[in-house]
Amino acid sequence: MPTSTTNVDQLSINTIRTLSMDAVQKANSGHPGTPMALAPVAYTLWTEWMRFDPQHPIWPARDRFVLSCGHASMLLYSLLHLCGVRQVDPMGEPREELGITLEDIKNFRQLHSPCAGHPEYGAAPGIETTTGPLGQGVGNSVGMALAGKWLAARYDRPDFAMFGYRVFCICSDGDLMEGAGCEAASLAGHLRLDNLCWIYDDNHITIEGSTELSFSEDVGRRFEALGWNVAKVSDANDLPAINAALNRFESCSDRPTLIVLRSVIGYGAPNKQNTHSAHGSPLGESEIQLAKKFFDWPVDSTFLVPDDVRAHFAETVAKRGEQEYQAWLDRLADYQYKYPEAAAELELIWQGNLPNNWAAKIPEFPPGKPLATRSASGKVLNAIAKEIPWLIGGSADLAPSNNTLLDNSDDVIGGEFTGRNLHFGVREHAMAAVCNGLSLCGLRAYAGTFFVFTDYMRPSLRLSSIMHQPVMYILTHDSIGLGEDGPTHQPIEHLAACRAIPGLVVFRPCDANEVAAGYRATMPLRRPTALILTRQNVPTIDRQRYASASGAERGGYILWDSDKSPQIILIGTGSEVQLCLDAAEQLAREQVRVRVVSLPSWELFEMQDEAYRNKVMPALISARVAVEVGIRQGWDRYLGPTGEFIGLSSFGASAPFERLYEHFDITVPAVLAAAKKQLGR
Amino acid sequence: MPTSTTNVDQLSINTIRTLSMDAVQKANSGHPGTPMALAPVAYTLWTEWMRFDPQHPIWPARDRFVLSCGHASMLLYSLLHLCGVRQVDPMGEPREELGITLEDIKNFRQLHSPCAGHPEYGAAPGIETTTGPLGQGVGNSVGMALAGKWLAARYDRPDFAMFGYRVFCICSDGDLMEGAGCEAASLAGHLRLDNLCWIYDDNHITIEGSTELSFSEDVGRRFEALGWNVAKVSDANDLPAINAALNRFESCSDRPTLIVLRSVIGYGAPNKQNTHSAHGSPLGESEIQLAKKFFDWPVDSTFLVPDDVRAHFAETVAKRGEQEYQAWLDRLADYQYKYPEAAAELELIWQGNLPNNWAAKIPEFPPGKPLATRSASGKVLNAIAKEIPWLIGGSADLAPSNNTLLDNSDDVIGGEFTGRNLHFGVREHAMAAVCNGLSLCGLRAYAGTFFVFTDYMRPSLRLSSIMHQPVMYILTHDSIGLGEDGPTHQPIEHLAACRAIPGLVVFRPCDANEVAAGYRATMPLRRPTALILTRQNVPTIDRQRYASASGAERGGYILWDSDKSPQIILIGTGSEVQLCLDAAEQLAREQVRVRVVSLPSWELFEMQDEAYRNKVMPALISARVAVEVGIRQGWDRYLGPTGEFIGLSSFGASAPFERLYEHFDITVPAVLAAAKKQLGR
Repeated sequence: MPTSTTNVDQLSINTIRTLSMDAVQKANSGHPGTPMALAPVAYTLWTEWMRFDPQHPIWPARDRFVLSCGHASMLLYSLLHLCGVRQVDPMGEPREELGITLEDIKNFRQLHSPCAGHPEYGAAPGIETTTGPLGQGVGNSVGMALAGKWLAARYDRPDFAMFGYRVFCICSDGDLMEGAGCEAASLAGHLRLDNLCWIYDDNHITIEGSTELSFSEDVGRRFEALGWNVAKVSDANDLPAINAALNRFESCSDRPTLIVLRSVIGYGAPNKQNTHSAHGSPLGESEIQLAKKFFDWPVDSTFLVPDDVRAHFAETVAKRGEQEYQAWLDRLADYQYKYPEAAAELELIWQGNLPNNWAAKIPEFPPGKPLATRSASGKVLNAIAKEIPWLIGGSADLAPSNNTLLDNSDDVIGGEFTGRNLHFGVREHAMAAVCNGLSLCGLRAYAGTFFVFTDYMRPSLRLSSIMHQPVMYILTHDSIGLGEDGPTHQPIEHLAACRAIPGLVVFRPCDANEVAAGYRATMPLRRPTALILTRQNVPTIDRQRYASASGAERGGYILWDSDKSPQIILIGTGSEVQLCLDAAEQLAREQVRVRVVSLPSWELFEMQDEAYRNKVMPALISARVAVEVGIRQGWDRYLGPTGEFIGLSSFGASAPFERLYEHFDITVPAVLAAAKKQLGR
Repeated sequence: MPTSTTNVDQLSINTIRTLSMDAVQKANSGHPGTPMALAPVAYTLWTEWMRFDPQHPIWPARDRFVLSCGHASMLLYSLLHLCGVRQVDPMGEPREELGITLEDIKNFRQLHSPCAGHPEYGAAPGIETTTGPLGQGVGNSVGMALAGKWLAARYDRPDFAMFGYRVFCICSDGDLMEGAGCEAASLAGHLRLDNLCWIYDDNHITIEGSTELSFSEDVGRRFEALGWNVAKVSDANDLPAINAALNRFESCSDRPTLIVLRSVIGYGAPNKQNTHSAHGSPLGESEIQLAKKFFDWPVDSTFLVPDDVRAHFAETVAKRGEQEYQAWLDRLADYQYKYPEAAAELELIWQGNLPNNWAAKIPEFPPGKPLATRSASGKVLNAIAKEIPWLIGGSADLAPSNNTLLDNSDDVIGGEFTGRNLHFGVREHAMAAVCNGLSLCGLRAYAGTFFVFTDYMRPSLRLSSIMHQPVMYILTHDSIGLGEDGPTHQPIEHLAACRAIPGLVVFRPCDANEVAAGYRATMPLRRPTALILTRQNVPTIDRQRYASASGAERGGYILWDSDKSPQIILIGTGSEVQLCLDAAEQLAREQVRVRVVSLPSWELFEMQDEAYRNKVMPALISARVAVEVGIRQGWDRYLGPTGEFIGLSSFGASAPFERLYEHFDITVPAVLAAAKKQLGR
């Protein structure tokens, strides 16, 4: 037992540091320097500030702690272990065992350990989001803070403060250099999220060396310009100064706070501190021994957690958390009695469920009248929004084009959180990261932009999927069908690129009723959805003559058989399904037995059993034509060895859309020609 | 002829405005409001400031004009037309006809018109880059300014100022909200690019309405914090104030300049100005008539260009440009005489060619010694850098991991431009946009980061390809082979996602000598390349036993045939080729006739003739196994209807890499089992 350490603060801080060093060393891989530098501020946050009950770690009103510099994951794992954060069962009920045991820490970065290289949401309670790719955690933190404000605005009542939690986020130079982080900061300032505190690890070190190589801006001044409250701490080891800065956050009621914390990376490692060699590699046994000596720590111990330290965390965060949680629980009981409807909504939010009748108001669209699928989406979105009050979202400044505005709803603007229409500005990347944060706090979030601009937010889209967050991406202007805006705005490779992301459900409906089916099929999933919609009008298919759009809920279905035993299958998605139908009608007139398959979602279709899939596309029918205004990549799966694809292999062009379809020869005659070639005619 | 217009300034400005209104109206699509607002500043820039010779529009020392808000394309087309910018032939020689005729403007947004919806690089001289996706043009402008500084630092001589051009960039709210724009601004401030001037169209309007909905930061103050010189113009129609601001730019010698220009969108259209309805739709005939009346313009004229205006542009920009160009040409003649070697280099740069001996120093790697392909890349990169002095680049703060540092080269830091090692900071998106700008000015640029972070820069990657810029993307840590950093850092879908981008050459070498082949094959192309490299060591293949790595230059080749008439083909890329070889050796021992194909680049392979492709993968051999640690998407093309794929279908995990290959069963036994299944054994 180290006894000469001056007090339990130091003992606790050094426990975090030595656990981090030891874990990285044992894994022979990882990032020791940042946990060593930031142990004091993280310790202070958790023991003195965080409202967090380790016994009930997914308590909805808890403060959130986000480690945006996810590479410093050992900092988080150490804290969660020392706090005694419990595991929870699949229903969210706390279990006896810890979420992160000392054994888990010893298995840092090993298969099946919750202590992964970077924090993985779901691996253990208290890991509030998956971080590592820089700029993401800070973006999530803005969404979480916004969710807190929104939930409080909607559900708090006089004398019933059910929310009002705070979000603390530790971030690095990289988070602030990343564009996603810049967007998120600007948005947070605009929204006046006074419940949000970023702590910036200002260590002057990047992987390539000093920040002087690439980062010379005045960060504090930048954030002031963005509408933030800025506090500075000149020494990361100065606990009173850290508390003073946090008090400045607490007392600021009209804007988010940035604490600029000057730190020394690898603090305590005499030969490596303040250099980038403390960043991403184990310190080495001898350097660790020197550091332990500096910390007045038993140099030959590893993974040592003094009993006093456990007791101290129990006395501080755990005790405070339990009191806060119990008081909140009492309040909730009264709230449920007094406001049963609101309480019932909250219950659904916390369980991640939808109301029973969520789809009740989805309209049926009459055949004949051409309607852009983006317009149909706007109607369906509004219909379900009526039934899901916690469905909120918006667009990256394209709401009128994306049809993402909710009728009869207010705008969410700085300091005003009762509305449901978010305005993300031209910030696609932050939009997606913020939606992930909203979703992690139980809200159903949607995000709109042009399909081509999924490229701008792809890292966050990927994280929606990694974290199984049901964010709805509403992506319009889905092809050369947008016309004159030209190649920079025309998605060509984006269907393939989105289908490539594991877990993301891509849905490209062919008409208004398939739009409705898309919402029906994807809203209940615990997966993100990319809804791919046209700018241009498309016919609303006559479902008397052709099959019901409900088939689209299975991802793919037989839209029309001209005959019971087809010779050829025409497969289309989205706006190209009509080309297939027109071609099929012509073929039928020529006595060809033809089937048309509408295939709006490969992912949903692949989730069906093999019998169904074989029924829709029987292996025996090898004559096939697929039509989609994108690249061929991936289509061979459905085309088989001899099928023909009609689509694009190059970027688009600027012209009216009808002209472009002709120019690229994606037309009924082209489909007919391909079909006849398939049939050897 | 309008005669009551007070002077030729107004006449010229209103010509730009009315051309823009008329073109958008005729196209029935486009963005009239911004050209109307910004005509005065653009006019002032071109007639009083730009060093640009319309007769020699690709003169290397010209000032660059970038319209980052590309939707305002009619502003650019009007200017290029009025300046009389000539067309150039494929060798860059000016031709008689204009690059943009009045007829072209009348065909705005029609197929084959150079006046596309957004400016397309290559469509006409004077369109310096493709813009439209916001944040890209500003990023390109930073690269262009950096290129100017770098070229001057390397090639200027006492009394021979061959470069020192300036870059003027007009940008919008969207450019400044986009993360890519934020990154670019921070980097430009850091680099102290005093030859760079951004003019910010501060119109208080976004598509969703007032900027108050989403953008409330103090932009000027933000830019000051980023190290910029900031000037303000409170009225976009105030020409003396515009000139005063540009003078502030000209007299500032240690930092870039932002001019905040308060404008009125749709200026002059009485019912639509200052509203977002002036942004993205034609004004309508009656509103145009009212605007023309306001401009004192013949209300019934369309596409009217007064002779005085043409004469005025000829007297200003054209005359000044011709003088500057001729003086420069004289200087160049002396320079060529005095500094023939430097002049010869410049000639290559301007032609976009490589030195004859550019590949002479590429090493051959001896077999046996395991080497990560990222390490081999570092050696090859350094070898070619010796021969291509204008090859410059760097990494988004991962240079030591990406092996992208050039030996014996200085860092490029603020104000010091003689080095070749760029430090982009953690700004992948700006890195790629800057590299596009460098490339557009003739430099050979490379950009390094982890492969997974291509997601962060995808919009710029796409533009490299749209613009045919040979930017080299050096992407390391290419799979679960990176090990412990876990799913957020492990590319799974990225090979598919990069192969999806039309025109991008993806090259994933299996060993050090294939790395060399990759550089050999791709450097001469006018296309961007994504070089996909391992973190972990891989064996350097014995090319005595197996085929020469030069086959890799064709994208795919027969690496080994155990027998002249193989029964089965094993296909691999990158680190999985060794698994194929090991499995093949085992199969051969079991009397199976086996072929191993290394397929580092689908794009290069598809560029080969059919005979070659059929030789490598004969259609008759249907037993096939492909191995790649990514998703299957796209592989069916090479697998045929019955081949088997060994790869991944979900995100990765955090563990030592050998453990992960086992966990996901991407192993020699798995390849053997698949092969035997293919052979019906």
